[in-house]
Amino acid sequence: MKTMQINEPGADFELVDKDIPSPADDEVLIKVQACGICHSDAFVKDGLMPGIEYPRVPGHEVIGTVEEVGNNVSAWDEGQRVGVGWHGGHCYECEACRNGDFINCENAKITGLHFDGGYAEYMTAPQNALASIPDGLNSTEAAPLLCAGITTFNALRNSDLKPGDLVAVQGIGGLGHLGVQYAHKMGCKVAALSRGMDKKELALGLGADVYINTEAENAVERLQNMGGADVLLATAPSSEAITSVIDGLGRNGNLMIVAATNDPIEVSPFQLIMGRKSVAGWPSGDAKDSEDTLDFSALNNVSPKIETFPLEEANEAYDRMINNEARFRVVLEM
Amino acid sequence: MKTMQINEPGADFELVDKDIPSPADDEVLIKVQACGICHSDAFVKDGLMPGIEYPRVPGHEVIGTVEEVGNNVSAWDEGQRVGVGWHGGHCYECEACRNGDFINCENAKITGLHFDGGYAEYMTAPQNALASIPDGLNSTEAAPLLCAGITTFNALRNSDLKPGDLVAVQGIGGLGHLGVQYAHKMGCKVAALSRGMDKKELALGLGADVYINTEAENAVERLQNMGGADVLLATAPSSEAITSVIDGLGRNGNLMIVAATNDPIEVSPFQLIMGRKSVAGWPSGDAKDSEDTLDFSALNNVSPKIETFPLEEANEAYDRMINNEARFRVVLEM
Amino acid sequence: MKTMQINEPGADFELVDKDIPSPADDEVLIKVQACGICHSDAFVKDGLMPGIEYPRVPGHEVIGTVEEVGNNVSAWDEGQRVGVGWHGGHCYECEACRNGDFINCENAKITGLHFDGGYAEYMTAPQNALASIPDGLNSTEAAPLLCAGITTFNALRNSDLKPGDLVAVQGIGGLGHLGVQYAHKMGCKVAALSRGMDKKELALGLGADVYINTEAENAVERLQNMGGADVLLATAPSSEAITSVIDGLGRNGNLMIVAATNDPIEVSPFQLIMGRKSVAGWPSGDAKDSEDTLDFSALNNVSPKIETFPLEEANEAYDRMINNEARFRVVLEM
Amino acid sequence: MKTMQINEPGADFELVDKDIPSPADDEVLIKVQACGICHSDAFVKDGLMPGIEYPRVPGHEVIGTVEEVGNNVSAWDEGQRVGVGWHGGHCYECEACRNGDFINCENAKITGLHFDGGYAEYMTAPQNALASIPDGLNSTEAAPLLCAGITTFNALRNSDLKPGDLVAVQGIGGLGHLGVQYAHKMGCKVAALSRGMDKKELALGLGADVYINTEAENAVERLQNMGGADVLLATAPSSEAITSVIDGLGRNGNLMIVAATNDPIEVSPFQLIMGRKSVAGWPSGDAKDSEDTLDFSALNNVSPKIETFPLEEANEAYDRMINNEARFRVVLEM
Ligand SMILES: [Zn+2]
Ligand SMILES: [Zn+2]
Ligand SMILES: [Zn+2]
Ligand SMILES: [Zn+2]
Ligand SMILES: [Zn+2]
Ligand SMILES: [Zn+2]
Ligand SMILES: [Zn+2]
Ligand SMILES: [Zn+2]
Repeated sequence: MKTMQINEPGADFELVDKDIPSPADDEVLIKVQACGICHSDAFVKDGLMPGIEYPRVPGHEVIGTVEEVGNNVSAWDEGQRVGVGWHGGHCYECEACRNGDFINCENAKITGLHFDGGYAEYMTAPQNALASIPDGLNSTEAAPLLCAGITTFNALRNSDLKPGDLVAVQGIGGLGHLGVQYAHKMGCKVAALSRGMDKKELALGLGADVYINTEAENAVERLQNMGGADVLLATAPSSEAITSVIDGLGRNGNLMIVAATNDPIEVSPFQLIMGRKSVAGWPSGDAKDSEDTLDFSALNNVSPKIETFPLEEANEAYDRMINNEARFRVVLEM
Repeated sequence: MKTMQINEPGADFELVDKDIPSPADDEVLIKVQACGICHSDAFVKDGLMPGIEYPRVPGHEVIGTVEEVGNNVSAWDEGQRVGVGWHGGHCYECEACRNGDFINCENAKITGLHFDGGYAEYMTAPQNALASIPDGLNSTEAAPLLCAGITTFNALRNSDLKPGDLVAVQGIGGLGHLGVQYAHKMGCKVAALSRGMDKKELALGLGADVYINTEAENAVERLQNMGGADVLLATAPSSEAITSVIDGLGRNGNLMIVAATNDPIEVSPFQLIMGRKSVAGWPSGDAKDSEDTLDFSALNNVSPKIETFPLEEANEAYDRMINNEARFRVVLEM
Repeated sequence: MKTMQINEPGADFELVDKDIPSPADDEVLIKVQACGICHSDAFVKDGLMPGIEYPRVPGHEVIGTVEEVGNNVSAWDEGQRVGVGWHGGHCYECEACRNGDFINCENAKITGLHFDGGYAEYMTAPQNALASIPDGLNSTEAAPLLCAGITTFNALRNSDLKPGDLVAVQGIGGLGHLGVQYAHKMGCKVAALSRGMDKKELALGLGADVYINTEAENAVERLQNMGGADVLLATAPSSEAITSVIDGLGRNGNLMIVAATNDPIEVSPFQLIMGRKSVAGWPSGDAKDSEDTLDFSALNNVSPKIETFPLEEANEAYDRMINNEARFRVVLEM
Repeated sequence: MKTMQINEPGADFELVDKDIPSPADDEVLIKVQACGICHSDAFVKDGLMPGIEYPRVPGHEVIGTVEEVGNNVSAWDEGQRVGVGWHGGHCYECEACRNGDFINCENAKITGLHFDGGYAEYMTAPQNALASIPDGLNSTEAAPLLCAGITTFNALRNSDLKPGDLVAVQGIGGLGHLGVQYAHKMGCKVAALSRGMDKKELALGLGADVYINTEAENAVERLQNMGGADVLLATAPSSEAITSVIDGLGRNGNLMIVAATNDPIEVSPFQLIMGRKSVAGWPSGDAKDSEDTLDFSALNNVSPKIETFPLEEANEAYDRMINNEARFRVVLEM
């Protein structure tokens, strides 16, 4: 089978032919149909996380069909269409798992990082990492929903958001352009925040009620004039940018951060106490959350804007993504 | 009547004899029995907030009896024992008030800051700022509950805290020594965090299960060894200190800040995303919250440790407080 | 001014010419543009509630413009378009009001029952009973949203419902046909339950994903085949019908009853314990809730199906409603 | 090993000597120290549930030590003290399990009903049914906490209850006498409801603030005079009794039913709509909930009142329980 693998930190993707793996007892073998390219693939590409073993095949936005099941697998059938996202399985034994809080599993595996992922014709995955795919979605469009989709959908539905609330989506990129759609389809009023006028038309077309060009306008003032954001979904990985819009939160407002960066945001106790505000982080979700995301997307016609590449062009595809040239997610097709 | 007033920012308290005021239509005249001294009285004493008119009588932890009621007041009776806290009344007309969210009233008045407070033998207050006092509490001990008490009680009961959770109380002072008691009486496991060994015995006596000397021990490690704090109540107004313990939060943990300062805390998106954590502020509460605080305190035998002074010694009393010499709240008795 | 009033329990509406009333200090005089007819108007028409004084002008789905304001009113301006619903004002003094829980005010007034309502060219109302009307809604269509709309919208948004959940709406009439729209626009999957095939096309057109003819199909089975309802909104005032669908609730499902009747529903502890289910009632909402309902409706294009009549034909209009002939709400236009 | 087993529905317990079983791959063998007797043991004793295979050893309040672990078990060690409650393990594959909602597992096993339980010297249990026991509890007292304890503790902590709320506990028996303690230790005001004066002293001693003799007093009125119950925990399996106290709920009050019976309670939509009330059921909890219950009990000194019998006297012990003669739980000691 063909794979595009990273041989060492910093290397390009190399096309390598390998044997199709066999699923272990608790695993499933998947014939990959599509795999989204995510900014977090840089962890593997550039060795940004300790403990990654090389060579490694990245890819955690995988859609395919079950080709073979392990000995202990009874819940999944051959031929069934399934997906695997960032959350690559959990242990059932740690404190978090015993609480049913799988995303916080102490022994959670990450797809395409702790085991080979979807930049390949086949891959194996733990059965508890699998989501089933509703018929209404095609595989290529469904792929990015397993990471960019679940992250924004899950953060929004688990925030304090109520239908009709003002949701500000900061950053209209791979995550944000989905966040706008989800918030809109949850019945919220949506303000899209982005630099420049580039994304305006698209954001409004996706359901944003208001577009705020953060280069030319005072986003905090604009949001306060609308009563303040009830939920502010921060999707752009810039702590400086996040810090700059906190005061756009309204009374009892909730800043939901899904943009993973290590730089600190700054917020004073006064800012949070006056108006009783909060700042929280949200980490994607587990396999069941993926299914919920896909079901909601199929029901409400939410889909990512994508560019597609054949597997062999993973290097070109990755470059589009990493250089912020893609509108908005890049997907490899096998 | 005798008052201790501040004539201009930075001045000492001056003993001034004034006429007893008459309550306006929506007000009540209170014969003050006791008034707690709070760190926030420094706003008036030192002119730290814009818009304060001088001379001003501070004091927002007031217990007394109703002496006279205004023309529109039917809910309060002469002779009834009442309290007035930081929240000095609301407008009923703003967006927040129409939502029943009185503490966030856009036109909220602050007792002893926007109108004369309890460093006096008498004061007037809007009727919607009044709390009734349960019989089980004496006036002197009840006074600090109207600010230090309500703030910690209300923050805790409105956090995600569940009975049995691990609550870390950072700072064992005027607020913290009440926070420890409240968390304990809510059935939680309590870790008290303070610098030095000074407060250890007291904290354990108030119901803390664990004492962490933050000068000598790694608080983050200690908390993580206990599974991580479910709620971390930050009562010490040091953003640096708050920043240093954020990683002591457990999975789904919630940092509740009641210590009002302007210095920013620093927290990275990663810190919040991993383990799905949140940081929130909590602003005291309204008159009904005060009643709930007092009722809970009477029911569960929570009371502040206090030092008392006669009204005339407000300067000495204030100095005890501002120099952190008091154990733990200072109360003026009339 | 012309009014259609009820002179005694059981009487028809009589056209009576009266003087335009003057607003009291806390009241507003409204020039009525439209008033919906509600099943609860039967309380006045037939004297079904103790303590109603006759003659009485019913009508609690009122849209009009402010004609004059009382001496204490500063929040409302002449000419402004406003609405008044079932909740006709609250006292600010009772336990519920002090908690900001206005809908549960012990002294709450009901519009068109405790004071004259909107079957008239003019009416007065307490200022705290007023909702402002967003520009996007015309007065005739907005009127029913102040009772049928707020009740279903508010019940749904305050239930445990999450976007994507399965919401079953029992009864596709005045309330239900709005409930279907609201649930759909909140991003939920909607099952409409009604007797016969009469309402099928309409329900699907309003956003229902599934139609269940409860005469011909086993609703409980149909719902369980879809995983069980997460929320079941009971709008048809038949306790027998409600009882019959409780087992259609899914795991952690929530039966939300807005259909006010006195007949008991029957549910066993076992039914609720297995699957951890709940049954709750929801009572419309206050003025701010009305605004939220109207704003959501304008934002998401939710509107009632209505039939209109001139004020003078209130008897004919009421008969349409009471005989269940209307599709789906009847509105008087002035 | 000695067991006390039921050979057929309606039979007495018979002392039978058997081979000590071997744990399957995912199981643990437990050397039983103590096993509580529960009213639900009647399901086995009298064959009240379809699908029970006989002979069967009942017992789902089991404390013991790990004697041997199955091949796939790494989370539990020999010699460790563990408990097994009603929830006897879950499948990880059904919709509920994938949601982390183990108590609602479609394939959940019940201890002592689907597999042999704790009326024996040894038993095996699935590893995911095990709770670890904190040092502060002795085995005999801990046993009933795994059913009567977890049920009341878990229902209360997952209700809308806030510290200081009024909790009414209906029925002061095996469950209720624990419910009183838990509510008290959560900082609530507790009203104990029972027939007669028999339980009064005990209830007050356990932390009840008020005792209501439902034979002599109007419980609804008493509760309403205190403002109405915020949470009413119904522990007595009489739907008639439950129905009779529903109106004792206050505004936004929540009736939490843990008493499993098949007879319907009756409640009208009006009763629930006025005051926005709810009725819910609560089904014990899973292994992690058991640990939380035990930890809370150890931390806050909650323990059941028990009578103890040797295993061989299971018939006498069971009779005490089933005839309501026990005060309040009966425990077999091995
Ligand atoms: Zn990703
Ligand atoms: Zn785990
Ligand atoms: Zn203060
Ligand atoms: Zn206000
Ligand atoms: Zn009221
Ligand atoms: Zn109505
Ligand atoms: Zn299961
Ligand atoms: Zn039991």
